[in-house]
Amino acid sequence: MKRSTRQMLEYKAYQLRVDSIRATTAAGSGHPTSCLSAADIVAVLFFKVMHYNPHNPSQINNDRFILSKGHAAPLLYAAFKQLGVVSDEQLLTLRQINSVLEGHPTFRFYYAEAATGSLGCGLSIGLGIALANQLNQQDCYTYVLLGDSECSEGSVWEAVQLAAHYKTHKLIAIVDVNRLGQANETIDGYTTDHYKKKFTAFAWNVLQVDGHSIADLIEVFEQAHQYCDGPTVIIAKTVKGYGIKSVENKPDFHGKVFKPEELQDILQELKDRFVPTALFQEDSWQLNLPEFNDEQIVCSDFILPVPIFSGATSTRKAYGQAITVAASVCQSVVCFDAEVKNSTFAQLFEDEHPFRFFESFIAEQNMVGMAIGMTRMKKISFVSTFAAFLTRAFDQLRMAAIGKNPLRIAGSHVGVSIGQDGPSQMGLEDIAMMRTLPGSVILYPSDAVSTFKLVQLMANYHQGISYIRLTREATPILYDQTENFQLGGCKVLRQPEGAQALLIAAGITLHEALKAADLLLQESIPVAVIDLYCIKPLDAQTLIIVAQKAQKGIITIEDHYLEGGFGQAVAAAVINQDIKITQLAVTTLPRSGTPEELRAMVKIDAHAIMEAVKG
Amino acid sequence: MKRSTRQMLEYKAYQLRVDSIRATTAAGSGHPTSCLSAADIVAVLFFKVMHYNPHNPSQINNDRFILSKGHAAPLLYAAFKQLGVVSDEQLLTLRQINSVLEGHPTFRFYYAEAATGSLGCGLSIGLGIALANQLNQQDCYTYVLLGDSECSEGSVWEAVQLAAHYKTHKLIAIVDVNRLGQANETIDGYTTDHYKKKFTAFAWNVLQVDGHSIADLIEVFEQAHQYCDGPTVIIAKTVKGYGIKSVENKPDFHGKVFKPEELQDILQELKDRFVPTALFQEDSWQLNLPEFNDEQIVCSDFILPVPIFSGATSTRKAYGQAITVAASVCQSVVCFDAEVKNSTFAQLFEDEHPFRFFESFIAEQNMVGMAIGMTRMKKISFVSTFAAFLTRAFDQLRMAAIGKNPLRIAGSHVGVSIGQDGPSQMGLEDIAMMRTLPGSVILYPSDAVSTFKLVQLMANYHQGISYIRLTREATPILYDQTENFQLGGCKVLRQPEGAQALLIAAGITLHEALKAADLLLQESIPVAVIDLYCIKPLDAQTLIIVAQKAQKGIITIEDHYLEGGFGQAVAAAVINQDIKITQLAVTTLPRSGTPEELRAMVKIDAHAIMEAVKG
Repeated sequence: MKRSTRQMLEYKAYQLRVDSIRATTAAGSGHPTSCLSAADIVAVLFFKVMHYNPHNPSQINNDRFILSKGHAAPLLYAAFKQLGVVSDEQLLTLRQINSVLEGHPTFRFYYAEAATGSLGCGLSIGLGIALANQLNQQDCYTYVLLGDSECSEGSVWEAVQLAAHYKTHKLIAIVDVNRLGQANETIDGYTTDHYKKKFTAFAWNVLQVDGHSIADLIEVFEQAHQYCDGPTVIIAKTVKGYGIKSVENKPDFHGKVFKPEELQDILQELKDRFVPTALFQEDSWQLNLPEFNDEQIVCSDFILPVPIFSGATSTRKAYGQAITVAASVCQSVVCFDAEVKNSTFAQLFEDEHPFRFFESFIAEQNMVGMAIGMTRMKKISFVSTFAAFLTRAFDQLRMAAIGKNPLRIAGSHVGVSIGQDGPSQMGLEDIAMMRTLPGSVILYPSDAVSTFKLVQLMANYHQGISYIRLTREATPILYDQTENFQLGGCKVLRQPEGAQALLIAAGITLHEALKAADLLLQESIPVAVIDLYCIKPLDAQTLIIVAQKAQKGIITIEDHYLEGGFGQAVAAAVINQDIKITQLAVTTLPRSGTPEELRAMVKIDAHAIMEAVKG
Repeated sequence: MKRSTRQMLEYKAYQLRVDSIRATTAAGSGHPTSCLSAADIVAVLFFKVMHYNPHNPSQINNDRFILSKGHAAPLLYAAFKQLGVVSDEQLLTLRQINSVLEGHPTFRFYYAEAATGSLGCGLSIGLGIALANQLNQQDCYTYVLLGDSECSEGSVWEAVQLAAHYKTHKLIAIVDVNRLGQANETIDGYTTDHYKKKFTAFAWNVLQVDGHSIADLIEVFEQAHQYCDGPTVIIAKTVKGYGIKSVENKPDFHGKVFKPEELQDILQELKDRFVPTALFQEDSWQLNLPEFNDEQIVCSDFILPVPIFSGATSTRKAYGQAITVAASVCQSVVCFDAEVKNSTFAQLFEDEHPFRFFESFIAEQNMVGMAIGMTRMKKISFVSTFAAFLTRAFDQLRMAAIGKNPLRIAGSHVGVSIGQDGPSQMGLEDIAMMRTLPGSVILYPSDAVSTFKLVQLMANYHQGISYIRLTREATPILYDQTENFQLGGCKVLRQPEGAQALLIAAGITLHEALKAADLLLQESIPVAVIDLYCIKPLDAQTLIIVAQKAQKGIITIEDHYLEGGFGQAVAAAVINQDIKITQLAVTTLPRSGTPEELRAMVKIDAHAIMEAVKG
């Protein structure tokens, strides 16, 4: 290695330190000591190791860098300043309300590969990107910088386990072992051997390095690149606050910034500490671009051909069929499963498109994290498991919303209608959970045809997370293949003269509502029925128009808990319209039983609907 | 070992197999093959190893058994039949709507130590029980039976890591390595050495055994008991469906039952297979009771003395103070932290009561799981972290609701009001999440005094989960120390003559509402203000009475997403009352900024409230 390269990198690391301190002091908050421990690692990565085109972050063969320890965001922004795409003026807007340089990286920073800040999520995202690169037959690397504290998160070990399974040797994790968390020494402290043992046991290639030696860091990345049998982790021993004696390796300096009045002394200390590096003026560094300059191939919006269904079909089965057809139509479609593919019918996808199917085993957090990485690589990622178990990945879903990642999520086995398996397997809070995600779309088909139509809408929705809620039981076909569905729509299925009430339902309860409507008509009580196939955004206008003609107002019926369900979404949407509302939903903890018994017990069946109309 | 003991245990295992098959066939659904792989392990545990009094499951020094692989519930019920507390008639009611023997164990089965069925949760619960036993200075064991598939869940490794940290040598995990998951071979298949490497790397004592050899199982538990330096895992190699050739070690038989018409042949095959055991008639087994017979010490409901606050105090700080005082008043109070104790002020608890404080590091799922175990041991468990990161443990919270475990949860740093750290750190969906939990209570104090009062209510609430939402900023004191607060209550703070609107707020927005009310009064626009300190259950009656006098109806103001927040809870509560409702809440993805700037941007500050009143 030429002395000039090392000097150049030391100079870059020095600049990163200076800028991390300047930016956080200007902001008055942030995590400078967490930046200082990782500055040398980031300098070597960004200015020596990575092939990256900052003028085209989406370039298909860019190496990628995920800052899993998102609180070191100023370090990331400082690196992009050195890459020439963030100005010094902009850097000093850190954490200001009109700045895209937020406290933790979000989608608003154009160069962030992922929104991070909830710890333990980054490695999964990196794994998703690495798998996308494999699919794209691109030979580039994905680097993930983890804090040592966040290695306590189980989600990290889910990703570790699966990366080894898929032998993604182009995935390189770096653990910044600076010993100190927010409030404590980390669980493993400076015992780097513990990290080595764990990663080794999970079949990773493990390298150890002094995280402040530029020369050693250069060498360790070279070693990492030589290993081709699986993923590599670099355990980098570092010092939190490295460079400033008063805070170096000391607790109680997490998330604390230097005061403006001490800034000059601090920067002088840094300069003295890194002489002669700090005096190294000739910055001979040049952009280290990837060889090729291909763009990602992205499918344009597509139409999903709908098969002819011969009879009752579960929406979960139709989902499996629909994503399988989608993958035939569009090469960007991929699928993730958490070991329930024979229940969600994602199995059909695997059978047809094995190389675009990713078995995640029972590890929902990593599954969603990988899908986030895949969407960053412009893949159309369908993720499916039991709706109940999506709760396991709520934090990852929350972060995906902050990252504006257009995940396509399917939750099957919803409601008490799954029957005998009991409440632990019943998705009863998924609508409430998904509704909270900014930009989310929530779809709920009631037959196989609409399932195909809604999967098509999901595939073509790129602005945020879309969720489809799937029923276990087979349900009759309601729609013709030519029927049109749209985001924010609903279907008025019955609108008889003199309708006394408007029944609003979706999924299994729509069939109960139709049954109730038929029986009520026999008793000369006409009611309107709406299929609320799109819960978010909600077609308030149609609901209001139909409801205003019904003297007894709206009755919503859903196989979901009352709290946060679509009944409350409807109530919020028709607020102040002087429309009476009755909500039938699950209001107590359910239990095992047959689907029919349970729907009767929680009062969401046809009989309960008829009583509500008459009552 | 006497031959008769081995024979007796083989006979018990045979009976467990017979009953698991009979019960699932009678039910028409269930997981018999998952029971068959673990029958020998359970037989040796229940009828040789464990000291347990089935006539007093709460006995303080009972050994405990957690069935983490909850789908093997029939095996658990069959074991309790052998213990003499479940009748054969009852066993055959498995999965029926009026049976307490649900598809997966819930609180309705009196003998279940935990509700299980969402995989990967059991080891954390067992760890919580083991830590409770240490606190109680009880020398008994906690056994957790895991499936091999569920070892993919990161939550398992969170528990593994922390059990080693706490060196809980009375915690013994058994992994039933039957190779087959629901849809796939597990990630490690029969490579039991992988399990050994991983657990060893995480500093566990690892033993391996043939899971179908009664003699070897007896020996391996003896070995486990001899190890005192930390937790032990027993890797038991088993065969899924063991005993019935047609399903043994075959995929596609997960969750499939034998048909009634084949039952006789299946049972005959089992009998032939286990001759002479099956013919062993003399059942010399007797209950293996613990030596002592102490009851758990449980605090009766207590009053929390409220200190005098000299000025503005954050509710998070008051929370830390309140739980610290609670722990002085009641010996059963324990506290869990996920490495943010200096932010949630749980640090104060640790300083005063270090032995009842459990640092969980950054691993929220295991933290909540441990607390579930602690509540099973009648400890009053307070769990605190950033509200945003509670989303990480939504599945565990869901399961705690199914287990009726009275967790006390605190979520700090809520809303956009945390400011510069940005959306990843903002709890904006916690109310929506907590509202979905059956039996949950949601509290939201606006000053330090009410924080103390609400923590007292939580400590004394034993019927389900209680949640307290905490604000980062210091807020002025609103209440006198003698003020009375109750579950399902609210406080009418302003009720002027001719109030034009009713402002309903809590936490930081209550202070904005009071500010708005003062400013509006200066403009001769009187408004009423309610402190909605209890969001669930909701005091609908008071809201309606006050709102009906206000011509412009209700305005709710909350630092939470609109979807599922308390505004929608209020809207649902006052439905059909002809009260106009306006909801101020966070409706878009927020960003970094100052708290004031952000509240203004999302329109939940005093100015926005005034506009809403005037509009």
